[in-house]
Amino acid sequence: MLKIIVDAMGGDNAPAEIVKGALQALRERKDFKLVFTGMEKAVAAELKKYKYDASRVEVVDCAETITNDDVPTSAVRTKKDSSLVVGLRLLKEDEEAGGFVSAGSTGAVLTGGVMLVGRIKGVHRPALCPALPNVRGTQTLLCDCGANAECKPAYLSQFALMASVYGKTAFEMEKPHVGLLSNGTEEHKGDPLHQEAYALLKQTAGIEFAGNVEGRDIMYGDVDVVVSDGFSGNVALKSIEGCGKMVATVLRSSFASSLGGKLAYLRARKYIGKLTTALDYSRYGGSVFLGLKKVVVKSHGSSKAKSICPSVIQAVDACRGNLIGEISARLETEIAAEQE
Amino acid sequence: MLKIIVDAMGGDNAPAEIVKGALQALRERKDFKLVFTGMEKAVAAELKKYKYDASRVEVVDCAETITNDDVPTSAVRTKKDSSLVVGLRLLKEDEEAGGFVSAGSTGAVLTGGVMLVGRIKGVHRPALCPALPNVRGTQTLLCDCGANAECKPAYLSQFALMASVYGKTAFEMEKPHVGLLSNGTEEHKGDPLHQEAYALLKQTAGIEFAGNVEGRDIMYGDVDVVVSDGFSGNVALKSIEGCGKMVATVLRSSFASSLGGKLAYLRARKYIGKLTTALDYSRYGGSVFLGLKKVVVKSHGSSKAKSICPSVIQAVDACRGNLIGEISARLETEIAAEQE
Repeated sequence: MLKIIVDAMGGDNAPAEIVKGALQALRERKDFKLVFTGMEKAVAAELKKYKYDASRVEVVDCAETITNDDVPTSAVRTKKDSSLVVGLRLLKEDEEAGGFVSAGSTGAVLTGGVMLVGRIKGVHRPALCPALPNVRGTQTLLCDCGANAECKPAYLSQFALMASVYGKTAFEMEKPHVGLLSNGTEEHKGDPLHQEAYALLKQTAGIEFAGNVEGRDIMYGDVDVVVSDGFSGNVALKSIEGCGKMVATVLRSSFASSLGGKLAYLRARKYIGKLTTALDYSRYGGSVFLGLKKVVVKSHGSSKAKSICPSVIQAVDACRGNLIGEISARLETEIAAEQE
Repeated sequence: MLKIIVDAMGGDNAPAEIVKGALQALRERKDFKLVFTGMEKAVAAELKKYKYDASRVEVVDCAETITNDDVPTSAVRTKKDSSLVVGLRLLKEDEEAGGFVSAGSTGAVLTGGVMLVGRIKGVHRPALCPALPNVRGTQTLLCDCGANAECKPAYLSQFALMASVYGKTAFEMEKPHVGLLSNGTEEHKGDPLHQEAYALLKQTAGIEFAGNVEGRDIMYGDVDVVVSDGFSGNVALKSIEGCGKMVATVLRSSFASSLGGKLAYLRARKYIGKLTTALDYSRYGGSVFLGLKKVVVKSHGSSKAKSICPSVIQAVDACRGNLIGEISARLETEIAAEQE
């Protein structure tokens, strides 16, 4: 049976919310097993709080935890008994293991993913790819949103390929339209990296390149995939996050400012809730780390159970949709074409 | 008397909304004159609709208009009788002229500003600097948000200087705290450009450097000035714009979805309006193009009267606050220090 490994110690709300969320996913999907890596006592104490099918849950004890204060590269090398390193090793070595979910240090997940799980043959650089809500009511994939601060044009073209495959296998996008994130829609926009990437994307077979897009187009949703270097993709993602917080804060203080406001809120709550839901991209899970030999999902550091649950399901779906096989096949075609 | 020149033909809603908004500003402030550049007949037809002090309004007839379809550099060179070129020439040549406002092509305003008005001595690259609303209820200055897709570390350090001066002279920021937009808050984050810019900003005298910030910090407002290369600054600005549109669209459709929603909206409208106002950064005017010898304000291409009015007032305030003089003085100190 498919195993999804969950880093029980990663993130601000570990292990309580991690265990809770993963067990929710276990109830929703019957076709996988959970393997928690983490301090056994702490995890067991959380598990005790819930009813679940014990035959589908396993705990692998680890003595260490990697935190945000650790330097990723050295932490992955030295903290060999950490929940993250043990989890990623298991992912690599256990044939039944298909996916790994962590809300821990992004840097450590990225470094560990590349070092311990390894890249798919032909992948220049794996990339983080979250799904963001858009005005159309669907999702826009943003790739890369932070794994690679420095990029070459060829990386961006591969991000487009991998994210397109991801869109097809996991989001029912038939022919994902790909936009290149730039500072304007005209072809000549951007710095040399983006101008060269534009030229390369135009020639990339197997993707539907729609030209340059701007930051606003991520949420407008006119394209399905937005390709970006990891630096500006991260800026876009975090800017949207900041805007979401601004919305929540202003609405709260506005309605709380008077009795009339509080009364109006009682009636409006339901409708405003749709906005909160629409802006909350954690309900789609985390960011998939595309380009590794197995499925790795990075959930937000502040994840609670309601984001861990979709992250685990996201990992299950990616395995069921054969994400890794599809990306490998796509890249093999690519490599074969280049050698011709 | 101080003259503010307004490009009556620039933007999607020219000349009607431009004339309307500029006249609103004329009513609000008594200490300046308006000079419209544009097709005299069209401008006069709009002016006719309003009552205003004719002794404070002048129209300079121009036969041409630069559009977004024009290539900025060649348009500025060849369309010599366009509202933009005539306006910028007037700004340079007329001693009383202190500021210029346009909602026209950003590229043409930038190119025209540099070519026709010129840079302040010592300025590497002028930069666009809008004021964005933040959770604290104040504004965050974002510089550069699109004038320079390619930057060097020294440019970013100067953006910090210029935006800090702007914050002091126009926003009552006593000691503006400056953050560097990056893909994480740690010092080592970013590509070489941003790592070098970090090192340089740490040594830049006369600014309060607070380290790296992320996209979300623009709206969190923990710093007063966010310095960025023009590429990622533009991505941030546009991402926030897209998020704002998402909010408006979701709220509209949510409340419109049922009779109960429509009724709830009647009571909630006032409170939701505060959100719309909070997110609408055009109420602060446009982006000031910092580093030119006179004040140039770029208003959003879709500007209506309610954004043109604050843009004109912004130009008046910048002149009154001696923005140009202060930036020049600051850079002279800088140049003197470098020569020692």
